[in-house]
Amino acid sequence: MTYCVAIKVDAGVVFCSDSRTNAGVDQVSTYSKMYHFGIQGDRQLVITSAGNLATTQSVIAKIRKDIKDGADISLATLDSIHEAADYVGEVSVAIQEKHANNNSNVSFEASFLLGGQIGLETPAVMLIYPQGNHITTSDQTPYLQIGESKYGKPILDRILKPETGLDTASLCALVSMDSTMKSNLTVGPPIELMTYATNSGQMEHTSFSADNEYLRELTKSWDRLIVEAFLQLPAPPQN
Amino acid sequence: MTYCVAIKVDAGVVFCSDSRTNAGVDQVSTYSKMYHFGIQGDRQLVITSAGNLATTQSVIAKIRKDIKDGADISLATLDSIHEAADYVGEVSVAIQEKHANNNSNVSFEASFLLGGQIGLETPAVMLIYPQGNHITTSDQTPYLQIGESKYGKPILDRILKPETGLDTASLCALVSMDSTMKSNLTVGPPIELMTYATNSGQMEHTSFSADNEYLRELTKSWDRLIVEAFLQLPAPPQN
Repeated sequence: MTYCVAIKVDAGVVFCSDSRTNAGVDQVSTYSKMYHFGIQGDRQLVITSAGNLATTQSVIAKIRKDIKDGADISLATLDSIHEAADYVGEVSVAIQEKHANNNSNVSFEASFLLGGQIGLETPAVMLIYPQGNHITTSDQTPYLQIGESKYGKPILDRILKPETGLDTASLCALVSMDSTMKSNLTVGPPIELMTYATNSGQMEHTSFSADNEYLRELTKSWDRLIVEAFLQLPAPPQN
Repeated sequence: MTYCVAIKVDAGVVFCSDSRTNAGVDQVSTYSKMYHFGIQGDRQLVITSAGNLATTQSVIAKIRKDIKDGADISLATLDSIHEAADYVGEVSVAIQEKHANNNSNVSFEASFLLGGQIGLETPAVMLIYPQGNHITTSDQTPYLQIGESKYGKPILDRILKPETGLDTASLCALVSMDSTMKSNLTVGPPIELMTYATNSGQMEHTSFSADNEYLRELTKSWDRLIVEAFLQLPAPPQN
């Protein structure tokens, strides 16, 4: 399994992804699920992926090839993130269909989060479904998730608003990831974080390994703070 | 959907369940999913249910009928909670099979949490799967969940230990329910709470409606405390 979250606030966008892949519980590997595509001064895009690893790797390979070959339609040429999401969806569906013809019992489905900024367009993030269609965020729901999304959802609902700062949004993504890792073995480090400040033209990438000092401190602090918060709650009424 | 949690600590057992049922999003109803079976001075048992409402209602009706008819095997006669779980599993499987013969496209599956105390046996809680088999808690995992379980799992993992008091366990169940209701529309009030102190011979039942003052205060306090806790976390490292 996988957990990826993408956040869109006024100040920019944040992506966070884990790096564990598994087929069953005894075939566990570490793969980055975060891919950066940038043209200095023109566009900065990031993609995170969940689902069938063969599908996601083929999709990313095709996206890279289209850029390298100077194809008419690629992440280097499209004018908006909306169009870029359409393109990634088409590539994904084509690759899934290719394999679905040969095998019937395996799911080749994959989902993607795509976001960043093209030119001076407002930054955006998109969730691309296995069927190739996509959705974006809203002021009420300024985040999108793929993979094992439920454990880490409550903290996103409580903290994120359009006016949330980029640092706070990054922290919220990491706490959401922490809750997910605590409850689900198939989500694990290294944790990758990508932040992009609106109009900065610059993606900032951080990778946290399992023994990263900050990540351990965050996990420990959050554990302690949640218990402290819990102890301040009003006691249930007595019968 | 449904969310039910059962907690077993040294001090006793706690059950918490919501009351929303739905078939699709436009057929939403309110049904209690918590059932109490007690023989004063002999046994106190509680069952909560999730899954197909026709199945769960039939299972509860059959359990009640067996008690009323003085059947050889019923929740009034069995000597242990382990055997009681076996019996509920058999009733559930029989009812599911009866309907499965007539229809093939609908899921008739149901899950149950069963617990309490029989005689001076150590109190216990059991999760009965749709297949009729069951599991119990351990010192490391002193709780069981059925239904929409993921949103409310992290707080249980953080707080519950065998030595946790009954009031704290009840509060933890309510907070777990609160996180689930916040993230999932198909889980909703009234919230029912049943607590049983070891060797007390007495189940304590509380029902919280949507406008219950304590429940609203709990939700508000938890929202505020989580945000306050979040704001105390160490900021992510800067690149």
